[in-house]
Amino acid sequence: MPRWKPDAKQRLVVAALSLFTEQGYDATTVAEIAERAGLTRSTFFRHFGDKREILAAGQTTLSRLLVEGIEGAPAGATPLQAVAAGLERASGAMTSFNRELSPLLRAAIEANEELQHRDALKIIGLAAAMTEALIQRGIAEATAHVATEIGVLAFKRGFARWTDPAHDHDPGELATHTRAALAELTTAVTELR
Amino acid sequence: MPRWKPDAKQRLVVAALSLFTEQGYDATTVAEIAERAGLTRSTFFRHFGDKREILAAGQTTLSRLLVEGIEGAPAGATPLQAVAAGLERASGAMTSFNRELSPLLRAAIEANEELQHRDALKIIGLAAAMTEALIQRGIAEATAHVATEIGVLAFKRGFARWTDPAHDHDPGELATHTRAALAELTTAVTELR
Repeated sequence: MPRWKPDAKQRLVVAALSLFTEQGYDATTVAEIAERAGLTRSTFFRHFGDKREILAAGQTTLSRLLVEGIEGAPAGATPLQAVAAGLERASGAMTSFNRELSPLLRAAIEANEELQHRDALKIIGLAAAMTEALIQRGIAEATAHVATEIGVLAFKRGFARWTDPAHDHDPGELATHTRAALAELTTAVTELR
Repeated sequence: MPRWKPDAKQRLVVAALSLFTEQGYDATTVAEIAERAGLTRSTFFRHFGDKREILAAGQTTLSRLLVEGIEGAPAGATPLQAVAAGLERASGAMTSFNRELSPLLRAAIEANEELQHRDALKIIGLAAAMTEALIQRGIAEATAHVATEIGVLAFKRGFARWTDPAHDHDPGELATHTRAALAELTTAVTELR
């Protein structure tokens, strides 16, 4: 049983992911999504510009939060400390809705090649935004790229642990998991050469 | 003027990439590719199982070479030394055909969303194969992931410099460029914390 009480927007996201899994992304229409959510098409269009935006909206937000966190890091922050600030800001915005949605999102992606493609491009877009934000802080371009890749790995690993279906207890905050993952990867960096 | 004298397989690749750019990947048929290359459909099928394989064949080879290089690194190699061995092996196999094909490949990818998706998934597949090969050497999983990301960045950066259209002189060997890129990223690693 979900612990969140879904609002209209969340119901639309859940309905869309269920339909993408069942019948594919391309075959699913806005009308079907609205119907499955028990809402009207006009309610759909109050929340999303089109079907594509259901998946893009989360990405845009995540990218913005990562960049804002990096921008807001203290002036003397090292590259990995700036990345850590980005992860804190993005992780802090993730709620139990995001966590409980993740098996549905994973199933939809596994079932659809087009969603796999979108997911891959999404991560490339996120990484480019983070690298640009690090370069804006005066970090050398090569260093910014490496710091970004470590940040992306930390977010993925933290998120995977937070949403691990094998958890039989409260997984706590996402930030706890991304912080632990970044610490682990920071140690790994000393073992490369 | 290309410096290589294309064989049938190379002519098929060039014909396919030109058609993908002009009319899209999905809209292009095997018959059209063979016709553009001045060859028969049966010649096409002597070289490739289907249209998809034209793009996948290069990836499979690249992935195999990276893994073989990592596996063949000396027993005491550090994670980045093992990655360097993979890059040497893969770079060494790239010929002037690969270099002169790259503007065509880039144009085809820029013109087709489906090829952008394939390209993104290709890199994910390569990275997974490299990480697995590093873990097989006894390298800790987190360290293997970071070393892989640095290796992928080095390959991308070296390849971009090797194929830079702004070159007005002989760009030399790809291996020279990937080696320089890996050295630069190895220095960057010391500036992260």
